[in-house]
Parts: sequence; structure tokens; C-alpha cells
Amino acid sequence: MSNQFLARRRVEFSDTDMAGIAHFSRFFLWMEQAEHEFLESRGLRVVFEDQGHKHGFPRVSATCDYQKPVRYRDWLIIAVFLEKTGRSSLQYRFDFTVEGDPAPVATGRLSTCLCQLTDGMMRSVPLPDWMRARLESPAGKAD
Amino acid sequence: MSNQFLARRRVEFSDTDMAGIAHFSRFFLWMEQAEHEFLESRGLRVVFEDQGHKHGFPRVSATCDYQKPVRYRDWLIIAVFLEKTGRSSLQYRFDFTVEGDPAPVATGRLSTCLCQLTDGMMRSVPLPDWMRARLESPAGKAD
Amino acid sequence: MSNQFLARRRVEFSDTDMAGIAHFSRFFLWMEQAEHEFLESRGLRVVFEDQGHKHGFPRVSATCDYQKPVRYRDWLIIAVFLEKTGRSSLQYRFDFTVEGDPAPVATGRLSTCLCQLTDGMMRSVPLPDWMRARLESPAGKAD
Amino acid sequence: MSNQFLARRRVEFSDTDMAGIAHFSRFFLWMEQAEHEFLESRGLRVVFEDQGHKHGFPRVSATCDYQKPVRYRDWLIIAVFLEKTGRSSLQYRFDFTVEGDPAPVATGRLSTCLCQLTDGMMRSVPLPDWMRARLESPAGKAD
Repeated sequence: MSNQFLARRRVEFSDTDMAGIAHFSRFFLWMEQAEHEFLESRGLRVVFEDQGHKHGFPRVSATCDYQKPVRYRDWLIIAVFLEKTGRSSLQYRFDFTVEGDPAPVATGRLSTCLCQLTDGMMRSVPLPDWMRARLESPAGKAD
Repeated sequence: MSNQFLARRRVEFSDTDMAGIAHFSRFFLWMEQAEHEFLESRGLRVVFEDQGHKHGFPRVSATCDYQKPVRYRDWLIIAVFLEKTGRSSLQYRFDFTVEGDPAPVATGRLSTCLCQLTDGMMRSVPLPDWMRARLESPAGKAD
Repeated sequence: MSNQFLARRRVEFSDTDMAGIAHFSRFFLWMEQAEHEFLESRGLRVVFEDQGHKHGFPRVSATCDYQKPVRYRDWLIIAVFLEKTGRSSLQYRFDFTVEGDPAPVATGRLSTCLCQLTDGMMRSVPLPDWMRARLESPAGKAD
Repeated sequence: MSNQFLARRRVEFSDTDMAGIAHFSRFFLWMEQAEHEFLESRGLRVVFEDQGHKHGFPRVSATCDYQKPVRYRDWLIIAVFLEKTGRSSLQYRFDFTVEGDPAPVATGRLSTCLCQLTDGMMRSVPLPDWMRARLESPAGKAD
């Protein structure tokens, strides 16, 4: 269970649509926010400088399967799993539940790629060893 | 090619993020807007009344693969393909390009399910024959 | 100071734009979220049933003055003040600061009106006495 | 009437909230989009380089008064008026109507300030003469 990390988000009024439920696109915002909190819990940042270069994690793919609608004032629990660490890529899974109910409401996935960002260009680079070490341990802490 | 339908959207300033490109979540909004324009080109609506019941197309899954970033003031061309028509479900593919450049920038998919909406509950129902007929022909026209 | 109430929000990556700062429209979402938390701290809801009718608080006007930009990962402190209670209307002020810095970053205002919502129509109604009593006291608590 | 400029936007499904109407925050996005189209109709851009410096128009204040709700599939007509041109500032008014109905649905205002953007700092600068000339004439054209 060492890779599990929980984020919480409340469904806000502005997250809902005329169907009375949270709009499906919002789950992608919640996934990204949970990803960033996960990285910070490992002492990492989604945008950072290394050896004089700006780095980031552009998204390669994003997906979400919806099991149940969620509503205004629901508290979402988002369990974050780092499912795969590739040469440059990180693949996450996000299990969404509503607080107080173990039934899954949605399952999402993000695939990201560490890139050097230079003059608007993106070039994938291998995950450095120090980053791999932090990803495997929740001991680190972002400033 | 009878199922191809094109929607256009401009990348607005508010679609961008601090990385200088459109935020990945925006592609899901553009897909949905293209889906709705596609349905209307077939004389259909994403929310409608039939036999005294409110109906809609809740999303079952959504996915997007990102090939290239898009930027403020880019004009997106979104080609809509109805890839599969199931008993209750519709599966779409969306091919994103930027006007004037044939290189793909993103490919998305939405899977939706026709549901009767009663008192906040959703119950999947078979696609009626009149809807199947319209989906196969671009002749219809929404009011 | 009995009417002061504090809400906190983090500036998320998706709140930023290509200028590298939070988009100005986000402050209106944060104001609304702070308003809802304020109402709940008084045992009230922004949408509720009373005497068989659905009620809500549609916005009559919204305004924001911007003093300083805010950035990704800033923690916003939003002080909520109920400045005026009219016959049907509530007028709020929101003072935004960034945690750890007393300098104001933005000041917003929302004017809302209690309305009965029937068949898509809105009809303003006087604030009931029980609501006025709760608004004046932080003792109440929403479920 | 030489300063009038019209923009059009459709209310999308994702613009609505659980009250069944467009969320009040969306009017600020539509104002900004109309502002940018207005500037482009004058041969100007909201972000540009001049004399080796990046320039932009950060928002100083934003306000909106709401007269009537707007709904999914409404076509909004946004009339843009440049109400005041100061030393560095531009003040716009936006009159929102729904196509086919002259009744106003909302009136918004944006106050912006021309700034030089250097290393994340903003410094207001006077509007150059060439920009004043373009603002007064719809003859120019953005690339």
C-alpha cells in the first residue's frame, strides 16, 4: 500500500451542470490536482528547474470511466496509485469514491512524460535517479 | 465517410495554462461540444423529452491521447466519427487538428448511453428506431 | 467582527493562464465557494426547500478589483463579510490575501437575491425571519 | 456607433449549472473573448511584443450585472463598447442579449491596463499613439 495517497475535493456548485450532477470534465481537473498533491508528498513538483532547464510533465493521455454521478456538496476521496514508472513516463490511476460510501464512482488514468521545456518546445528526458528514489518513498516533502 | 462531421473551435486565452498551451482538460469540453453539434446535424438533441420522460446521454467513459500542444488563437478542426452504435450506447471518436496543418494534435473518444432520467435516477434504455435512422443520415435538422 | 468568516483555497495549475497567473475569472468561483461555506457556517444552504418550494440565491451582480496577481500553489485566504441584508437581497464583500502576506490581492462583491424557483421561473421573496436570525449568528450549523 | 462591435457565443452544456442556467462566472469568459475579438478587429492583440518587450492587458476590475438567466443553446450577442481610453487603461462595456430578443440579459464591464511584462513583473505603460489610432478605427486587421 506504499504507493497509495489520498486527496479530497468537494464538489462545488460550479462543478455541476444542468443535469444536476458534476460535469464529466471536472474529474480530469480533480485527477491533476491529486497528482500534484501526490508529487508534493514525495518532495516533487510538477514544474521545476533542474540543471538550468525548466521541466514539466505534459499529459500523454487521460481517461476516465464513470460508474455513478456525483453531486454538489459530495466529498470526493481520490486514491492515487503510481501504476507504472517508465524511462520518462509516469502512469497514474485514480479511484474516486464519495466519503462514507465505498462504491466506486469513477476510475481515471493519466499518463505523463517528463520533458525539458525550452522555448516552447518539449523534449522527453529520462527520469533522474533522485526522482525515482523520491517517487518510491513518501518520506520526502516539498518545500 | 457519411459519418464524418466537422466542428471548429478557437483556443481562447482562458483555455491556456501557465505552460503556455491549452489545458488538457479542455479537449473534453471541445469533444462534448462537437458531439452536440453532430447530434443536432442529425436532428437530435443531447437532452430531450420522449413519451413523457426526460432523456439524456450520460458519459460512460472519456479518453484523450495528446500528440501536440495547441495554443491561444489556434483554430481547432474536430472531425467527429460515430464509431459504434450499441443497444443503448453511442461511441464517438474525435480527431483534432489545427487549421492549416494536417498533423493530428489529439484523438479523443466518448462513450455515452441513452438514459431515461427520472427523479435524479438514470436508467439505460434502448436507442429507439427513429433515433437510429437519424444517426445514420445527415438529412435531419434540429429546430 | 462577528460577521467575518475565512475560507481557504489553493491556486491550482488549471486556474492559471498563459500569463503565468490565475485567470481573473477564477476569483468569481472562489467568491461563490466562500459564500457557500459562509452560509453553511450559519446553518444555511444556497439551494434549499421551504414550504414545498425550491429556493435559491441567483446572483444580481458580481464585481472584482484586482490589486496583485496570484500564482500556482499560492494559498488564498478569503475573508467574507455580509455587508448588507435587504428585504430579499444579501450583499457580500470578499477580501483576498495570500497566506503569509497581509497585502490585499483582490476585493470582490456579490449581490444575491433570495428567489423561489418554480418551473424555471425566479420570483424574489423576502428573507424569512429564521434566515435573518441565522445570518446574524455563527451558532447554526448545516447538516 | 463607430465603437460598436458584436461577438457571438453559444451557451454550451458545460456552461450550465444545476440551476439549469449558465453559471454567472461564464459571462466573464465571454467578455474576455469579445474583448479579444474587438482588439483583433482593430488590428491589435491582447498579448504582443513591442520594442523587445512583452506587453499585455492585465485586468484591473471586472463587473457584471445580471438581468435574466440564459440557457443551454441560447445564442448570445455581445455588443462591445470601448467606453474610455485613459493614459494606460481601456474600459469596456459589454451588452449581452439573446439572439432574437432585444431584452438585455446582462451588462458587464472590464477595465484593463497596458503593461510591460518583464520577469513576472507588470509595469503600466502609456498607450502608444499607433495603438490609439487603431482603437479609434475599425480599419486595421490582425494577421
